[in-house]
Amino acid sequence: MNASESRRRFAEARVARLATRGEGTPGLLPIVFAIAGDDIITAVDHKPKSTRDLRRLSDIADDPRVAVLVDHYDDADWSRLWWVRADGIAAVHDGDATAHRAIDHLVDRYSQYRTRRPAGPVIVVSVSRWSGWAADPGR
Amino acid sequence: MNASESRRRFAEARVARLATRGEGTPGLLPIVFAIAGDDIITAVDHKPKSTRDLRRLSDIADDPRVAVLVDHYDDADWSRLWWVRADGIAAVHDGDATAHRAIDHLVDRYSQYRTRRPAGPVIVVSVSRWSGWAADPGR
Repeated sequence: MNASESRRRFAEARVARLATRGEGTPGLLPIVFAIAGDDIITAVDHKPKSTRDLRRLSDIADDPRVAVLVDHYDDADWSRLWWVRADGIAAVHDGDATAHRAIDHLVDRYSQYRTRRPAGPVIVVSVSRWSGWAADPGR
Repeated sequence: MNASESRRRFAEARVARLATRGEGTPGLLPIVFAIAGDDIITAVDHKPKSTRDLRRLSDIADDPRVAVLVDHYDDADWSRLWWVRADGIAAVHDGDATAHRAIDHLVDRYSQYRTRRPAGPVIVVSVSRWSGWAADPGR
């Protein structure tokens, strides 16, 4: 699947999974996200005691290389399976103008965030590569 | 969420995501899987030219530490969100008795594999830690 089709499918999804390197086993978590250009934005809902306090944040401080995955599974029809992945470099922002704008994107996208705006740091992934696979690219 | 509840929810899922370390950005792919005891089993559908030929296999050869994630997302009700993660050590088997037994588990679980038995190597993740989170652990 080419980069533009991969990015298109990614942008339509409501949930993705973020893999970080850090130390030991990879970090891996589901995230809600927004896309702005070639940035993927996700936020920590609650303010951690420090930016080293959460595994995903300390992993990114140790090694900013991350992967983010969106996939579609259909148990009844494997010809409908596809996935798209974004590889990039993550940066953590907290309380600055970038964080504020990033949270605005999330609030636009998820009504839950309008009721309770994310209070914690923001992770912005600068995507260097969109890639993907589909069992049947025509579907 | 405790280990036994995390493992129970994991075992019921039909799809998971595998994160590998390797070099550069983390490897990250959706997988179908079976569980046998504290092993997670997944297979490569087609025989690659060599066990270094696929990113997930070369990553595991470089560093066997992996994470596997199952998550539940509900766009309308975030109180139903949960995820469970298995951290462990992966080994690749190809053509041996372990691979054969592992593929039997997959064939039992997925009817698609009865029509076309996986031909490639098998990844067996020996899980050292089951962990998880639920927005509302009672649901």
